[in-house]
Amino acid sequence: ADAAAGKAKAQMCAVCHGPNGLSTAPDAPHLAGQPALYVAAQLRAYRSGARAHEVMGVMAKPLTDADIDNLAAWFSSIKVTAQLP
Amino acid sequence: ADAAAGKAKAQMCAVCHGPNGLSTAPDAPHLAGQPALYVAAQLRAYRSGARAHEVMGVMAKPLTDADIDNLAAWFSSIKVTAQLP
Repeated sequence: ADAAAGKAKAQMCAVCHGPNGLSTAPDAPHLAGQPALYVAAQLRAYRSGARAHEVMGVMAKPLTDADIDNLAAWFSSIKVTAQLP
Repeated sequence: ADAAAGKAKAQMCAVCHGPNGLSTAPDAPHLAGQPALYVAAQLRAYRSGARAHEVMGVMAKPLTDADIDNLAAWFSSIKVTAQLP
Protein backbone atom coordinates (compact mmCIF):
# COMPACT_ATOMS: atom_id res chain seq x y z
CA ALA A 1 0.00 0.00 0.00
CA ASP A 2 1.06 3.57 -0.73
CA ALA A 3 0.75 5.85 2.30
CA ALA A 4 1.66 8.95 0.27
CA ALA A 5 -1.19 8.27 -2.15
CA GLY A 6 -3.40 7.67 0.87
CA LYS A 7 -2.41 11.02 2.32
CA ALA A 8 -3.43 12.76 -0.92
CA LYS A 9 -6.73 10.87 -1.02
CA ALA A 10 -7.35 11.67 2.67
CA GLN A 11 -7.99 15.35 1.95
CA MET A 12 -11.69 14.54 1.58
CA CYS A 13 -11.64 12.87 5.00
CA ALA A 14 -10.21 15.93 6.74
CA VAL A 15 -13.46 17.90 6.86
CA CYS A 16 -14.77 15.63 9.62
CA HIS A 17 -11.73 13.60 10.71
CA GLY A 18 -9.27 16.51 10.84
CA PRO A 19 -6.14 17.30 8.84
CA ASN A 20 -4.03 15.13 11.14
CA GLY A 21 -6.67 12.44 11.71
CA LEU A 22 -7.98 13.90 14.94
CA SER A 23 -11.70 14.36 14.58
CA THR A 24 -13.20 17.82 14.42
CA ALA A 25 -16.81 16.60 14.48
CA PRO A 26 -18.51 15.22 17.59
CA ASP A 27 -19.91 12.24 15.70
CA ALA A 28 -16.75 11.37 13.76
CA PRO A 29 -13.97 9.21 15.20
CA HIS A 30 -10.28 9.97 15.28
CA LEU A 31 -8.51 8.05 12.52
CA ALA A 32 -4.95 8.96 13.49
CA GLY A 33 -2.89 5.88 14.17
CA GLN A 34 -5.77 3.44 13.78
CA PRO A 35 -4.61 -0.05 12.78
CA ALA A 36 -4.54 -0.37 8.98
CA LEU A 37 -6.52 -3.60 9.14
CA TYR A 38 -9.30 -1.87 11.06
CA VAL A 39 -9.49 1.19 8.80
CA ALA A 40 -9.55 -0.96 5.66
CA ALA A 41 -12.24 -3.24 7.07
CA GLN A 42 -14.45 -0.29 8.00
CA LEU A 43 -14.07 1.40 4.61
CA ARG A 44 -14.98 -1.87 2.87
CA ALA A 45 -17.97 -2.25 5.20
CA TYR A 46 -19.13 1.29 4.44
CA ARG A 47 -18.64 0.69 0.70
CA SER A 48 -20.69 -2.50 0.76
CA GLY A 49 -23.28 -1.11 3.16
CA ALA A 50 -22.51 -3.72 5.83
CA ARG A 51 -21.75 -0.76 8.08
CA ALA A 52 -24.37 1.90 7.58
CA HIS A 53 -23.67 5.62 7.75
CA GLU A 54 -25.23 8.25 5.52
CA VAL A 55 -22.07 10.26 4.88
CA MET A 56 -19.54 7.43 4.95
CA GLY A 57 -21.61 5.35 2.56
CA VAL A 58 -21.33 8.14 0.01
CA MET A 59 -17.63 8.74 0.69
CA ALA A 60 -16.67 5.06 0.46
CA LYS A 61 -18.76 4.18 -2.60
CA PRO A 62 -16.22 5.31 -5.25
CA LEU A 63 -13.12 3.97 -3.45
CA THR A 64 -11.14 1.22 -5.12
CA ASP A 65 -9.47 -1.53 -3.10
CA ALA A 66 -6.16 0.25 -3.70
CA ASP A 67 -7.62 3.56 -2.45
CA ILE A 68 -8.79 1.81 0.70
CA ASP A 69 -5.45 0.13 1.36
CA ASN A 70 -3.64 3.42 0.74
CA LEU A 71 -5.93 5.35 3.09
CA ALA A 72 -5.45 2.66 5.73
CA ALA A 73 -1.67 2.86 5.28
CA TRP A 74 -1.76 6.63 5.66
CA PHE A 75 -3.91 6.83 8.78
CA SER A 76 -2.04 4.01 10.48
CA SER A 77 1.27 5.78 9.85
CA ILE A 78 0.26 8.72 12.08
CA LYS A 79 1.70 8.37 15.57
CA VAL A 80 -0.71 8.83 18.45
CA THR A 81 -0.06 9.14 22.13
CA ALA A 82 -2.61 9.01 24.92
CA GLN A 83 -2.53 10.63 28.32
CA LEU A 84 -4.95 9.48 31.00
CA PRO A 85 -6.75 12.26 32.88
CA ALA B 1 -22.21 10.71 32.88
CA ASP B 2 -19.67 9.37 35.34
CA ALA B 3 -16.21 9.01 33.80
CA ALA B 4 -14.81 7.30 36.92
CA ALA B 5 -17.49 4.61 36.71
CA GLY B 6 -16.71 4.34 33.02
CA LYS B 7 -13.04 3.84 33.79
CA ALA B 8 -13.89 0.95 36.13
CA LYS B 9 -16.22 -0.59 33.56
CA ALA B 10 -13.58 -0.16 30.85
CA GLN B 11 -11.38 -2.88 32.30
CA MET B 12 -13.10 -5.39 30.06
CA CYS B 13 -12.34 -3.22 27.03
CA ALA B 14 -8.61 -3.13 27.76
CA VAL B 15 -7.85 -6.63 26.43
CA CYS B 16 -8.28 -5.39 22.85
CA HIS B 17 -8.41 -1.61 23.16
CA GLY B 18 -5.49 -1.23 25.58
CA PRO B 19 -5.30 -0.02 29.19
CA ASN B 20 -5.05 3.59 27.99
CA GLY B 21 -7.43 3.24 25.05
CA LEU B 22 -4.72 2.63 22.47
CA SER B 23 -5.51 -0.60 20.68
CA THR B 24 -3.35 -3.64 21.17
CA ALA B 25 -5.16 -5.72 18.52
CA PRO B 26 -4.76 -5.15 14.77
CA ASP B 27 -8.51 -5.29 14.21
CA ALA B 28 -9.54 -3.13 17.17
CA PRO B 29 -9.63 0.65 17.02
CA HIS B 30 -8.09 3.10 19.44
CA LEU B 31 -10.75 4.48 21.76
CA ALA B 32 -8.58 7.06 23.53
CA GLY B 33 -10.00 10.53 23.14
CA GLN B 34 -12.81 9.51 20.83
CA PRO B 35 -15.78 11.89 20.96
CA ALA B 36 -18.27 10.73 23.61
CA LEU B 37 -21.14 11.02 21.14
CA TYR B 38 -19.38 8.66 18.73
CA VAL B 39 -18.44 6.06 21.35
CA ALA B 40 -21.96 6.02 22.79
CA ALA B 41 -23.54 5.71 19.34
CA GLN B 42 -21.29 2.77 18.43
CA LEU B 43 -21.93 0.95 21.70
CA ARG B 44 -25.68 1.36 21.20
CA ALA B 45 -25.34 0.13 17.62
CA TYR B 46 -23.40 -2.93 18.77
CA ARG B 47 -25.95 -3.56 21.51
CA SER B 48 -28.88 -3.41 19.09
CA GLY B 49 -27.04 -5.27 16.35
CA ALA B 50 -27.24 -2.32 13.93
CA ARG B 51 -23.45 -2.52 13.84
CA ALA B 52 -22.36 -6.12 13.60
CA HIS B 53 -19.24 -7.51 15.24
CA GLU B 54 -18.97 -10.91 16.87
CA VAL B 55 -17.02 -9.82 19.94
CA MET B 56 -18.50 -6.36 20.37
CA GLY B 57 -22.04 -7.68 20.09
CA VAL B 58 -21.37 -9.88 23.11
CA MET B 59 -19.56 -7.14 25.04
CA ALA B 60 -22.25 -4.52 24.45
CA LYS B 61 -25.30 -6.74 25.07
CA PRO B 62 -25.36 -6.36 28.88
CA LEU B 63 -24.54 -2.65 28.96
CA THR B 64 -27.12 -0.27 30.35
CA ASP B 65 -27.62 3.20 28.90
CA ALA B 66 -25.78 4.56 31.95
CA ASP B 67 -22.88 2.13 31.39
CA ILE B 68 -22.63 3.33 27.79
CA ASP B 69 -22.68 7.00 28.72
CA ASN B 70 -20.08 6.40 31.43
CA LEU B 71 -17.79 4.48 29.07
CA ALA B 72 -18.14 7.24 26.49
CA ALA B 73 -17.32 9.85 29.13
CA TRP B 74 -14.24 7.89 30.20
CA PHE B 75 -12.76 7.28 26.76
CA SER B 76 -13.43 10.84 25.62
CA SER B 77 -11.62 12.19 28.68
CA ILE B 78 -8.30 10.66 27.57
CA LYS B 79 -6.12 13.22 25.82
CA VAL B 80 -4.66 12.17 22.48
CA THR B 81 -2.07 13.84 20.35
CA ALA B 82 -1.14 12.97 16.78
CA GLN B 83 2.14 13.38 14.99
CA LEU B 84 2.26 13.15 11.20
CA PRO B 85 5.04 10.96 9.78
